[in-house]
Amino acid sequence: MSENVKINRGLKGVYFERSGVSDIDGAKGELSYRGYSIHDLATHSTFEEVCYLLIYGELPTAGQLADFDADLKAARVLPDEIHAIIRACKDGHPMDVLRTCVSALAALEPASQQVGEEAFLANGVRLTSQVPMIIAAHEAIRNGRDPVAPDMTLGHAANWLWMLKEEKPSADAARLADVDFILHAEHGSNASSFAARVTVGTEANLHGAIVTALSTLAGPAHGGAAEDVMKMVHEIGTPDKAAVYVKAKRAAKEAVTGFGHRVYRKEDPRARHMREGVRKLGEEMGAPEWYEILQAVVEAMSPYARHGLNVNVDFYSGVIYQLHGIPMDLYVPIFAIGRMPGWVIQCIEQQRGNILIRPLTLYNGPELRGYVPIADR
Amino acid sequence: MSENVKINRGLKGVYFERSGVSDIDGAKGELSYRGYSIHDLATHSTFEEVCYLLIYGELPTAGQLADFDADLKAARVLPDEIHAIIRACKDGHPMDVLRTCVSALAALEPASQQVGEEAFLANGVRLTSQVPMIIAAHEAIRNGRDPVAPDMTLGHAANWLWMLKEEKPSADAARLADVDFILHAEHGSNASSFAARVTVGTEANLHGAIVTALSTLAGPAHGGAAEDVMKMVHEIGTPDKAAVYVKAKRAAKEAVTGFGHRVYRKEDPRARHMREGVRKLGEEMGAPEWYEILQAVVEAMSPYARHGLNVNVDFYSGVIYQLHGIPMDLYVPIFAIGRMPGWVIQCIEQQRGNILIRPLTLYNGPELRGYVPIADR
Repeated sequence: MSENVKINRGLKGVYFERSGVSDIDGAKGELSYRGYSIHDLATHSTFEEVCYLLIYGELPTAGQLADFDADLKAARVLPDEIHAIIRACKDGHPMDVLRTCVSALAALEPASQQVGEEAFLANGVRLTSQVPMIIAAHEAIRNGRDPVAPDMTLGHAANWLWMLKEEKPSADAARLADVDFILHAEHGSNASSFAARVTVGTEANLHGAIVTALSTLAGPAHGGAAEDVMKMVHEIGTPDKAAVYVKAKRAAKEAVTGFGHRVYRKEDPRARHMREGVRKLGEEMGAPEWYEILQAVVEAMSPYARHGLNVNVDFYSGVIYQLHGIPMDLYVPIFAIGRMPGWVIQCIEQQRGNILIRPLTLYNGPELRGYVPIADR
Repeated sequence: MSENVKINRGLKGVYFERSGVSDIDGAKGELSYRGYSIHDLATHSTFEEVCYLLIYGELPTAGQLADFDADLKAARVLPDEIHAIIRACKDGHPMDVLRTCVSALAALEPASQQVGEEAFLANGVRLTSQVPMIIAAHEAIRNGRDPVAPDMTLGHAANWLWMLKEEKPSADAARLADVDFILHAEHGSNASSFAARVTVGTEANLHGAIVTALSTLAGPAHGGAAEDVMKMVHEIGTPDKAAVYVKAKRAAKEAVTGFGHRVYRKEDPRARHMREGVRKLGEEMGAPEWYEILQAVVEAMSPYARHGLNVNVDFYSGVIYQLHGIPMDLYVPIFAIGRMPGWVIQCIEQQRGNILIRPLTLYNGPELRGYVPIADR
């Protein structure tokens, strides 16, 4: 094979498909779902409405939204076996436990074996409701409590907080979680959505694709950043130490967590809403220092902004979770709750006119050689 | 975004990385692992030796092979919780149960959380031994038997058959399984290996990547073909009906299972060894008709060979499993046993100089539009 073959490492800049779900303008720092700016959706919409928009392509009427919401609520059911499986591996990382349970649902629910648009839709709605329930049930079980039954009077985000803590969330806390889910709901062909599409490309079912997405989201270079930012904030400790921390990192040519993104050259448009959430929540809870540390890091990083090193969405979300008393190892699972509709619609898109996704590697190993019997080696 | 952007559907013909593991010459119909022809390996080597070769790059000396074999045998251990998890979802498809258990091992074995070359190697060896044990334990449990303990005097393939059936396999049967595993061990950036690399690209751990690979292999357009071929053979029934079957399929513009491959334009070089296995085994077991049906299908398909529609590896393997009395839903899991070393080494390659694998989709959805309150829709 000629050495002139072009190697597209990381598939950077390679287009593999068209998609009508979300549009990212990395140069301008803009993101829209189905034509609606993320800023409008984060301000005016709800997670349920955004799910409907992403999946069906249009904002719902009041009647359509009520029906969709009823479908989501009716899907708040987990087979008993899932609790047994959680108990068997309760000391594991919540992301591993979540993935194990989604995988097990494929074995427990025969409908999960169906493929095609209708099946992907039905299974997608069911999984969207089950994913937060699994995370909450695991949190209860590993703390010696029984899993909490869902509250059908609560919306998706509020019900999740209720099941997680066995405590009704304030309206503000529920709204902050709702906005967090909206901001994380969809983001083009990010690594987890792309990997899910590769799985669907072999005509696998949706559960298989979501399992793939969960495995891929778990990596620190994708969903794990919020957890890492929180660790950094703890390490820095006080705002006045941020500049020294950043300088040392840059000198050691190490990345500063929460900065930079493969696509955005300007600030990640989702960061704005999370920043405002951190500021307000910190003030309300009498803990403004977290926001101050984060802003001191941003200031220390400002000379590098022209190289595209701006804050991304994960820079602020960890602090919000921390202020809510949510354990750090739940940060990635929370990302997964939000990303469910994005994964589902991308899998639905992929299976329309499906094609096997199979790129090539250029061989650079040994030339053909003769087999030598083991006695002669 | 300009309409002149090139869309590489299925990433066909796109190179994303260099790899020194296997070389496929699709035009000539040749496959080699680390420079050794698949024909030499299928004739002279063993699965353990091929694992060593794939992972370390060279054929082992007798001492190196003995050490590696001892490592594989020492890894024939499953946590008790795995049996509990299998019991909880025993009626599921074996591929879903296998994937659930590999995912659960990440939660149960803390070493699985490590990343880096050394960790991937150790976890890869462990998983290579555990995957066939999980499949065998599930087969026992769903048939009301207790899982069988491994036999440390037996090699990888023979021990798997022993654990599957609680019956010592003949030397011929064990060798046929061994060759099957060798032929399936590695095959460039096929969809499952590529998907596993996408998972590793986010700096996820090996267990996550293998879970992704299992989800992706499960699709009928990848690992599911052997099962489909067996169904086709049953549908055809007798050799004289093959021509009519093929004619009807071609007329309906439907694919004939087991023919064609994204990469090969000539016969898949692995098919030769499986064909010989089917012929011999069929004769020995007094069931030559399976071979005859398959060959009648090949003959009926011969006019299309110049379009690249030649038999692939899956065309013959299903019949071999059938003759061994292995249930059809275990055909894909058997593929997974063989592919383990290929997945492991590709994940190891990926994490050397790792990069996020994130291609792009071209947006073709609605233009930016203003948000309309629900009351006004």
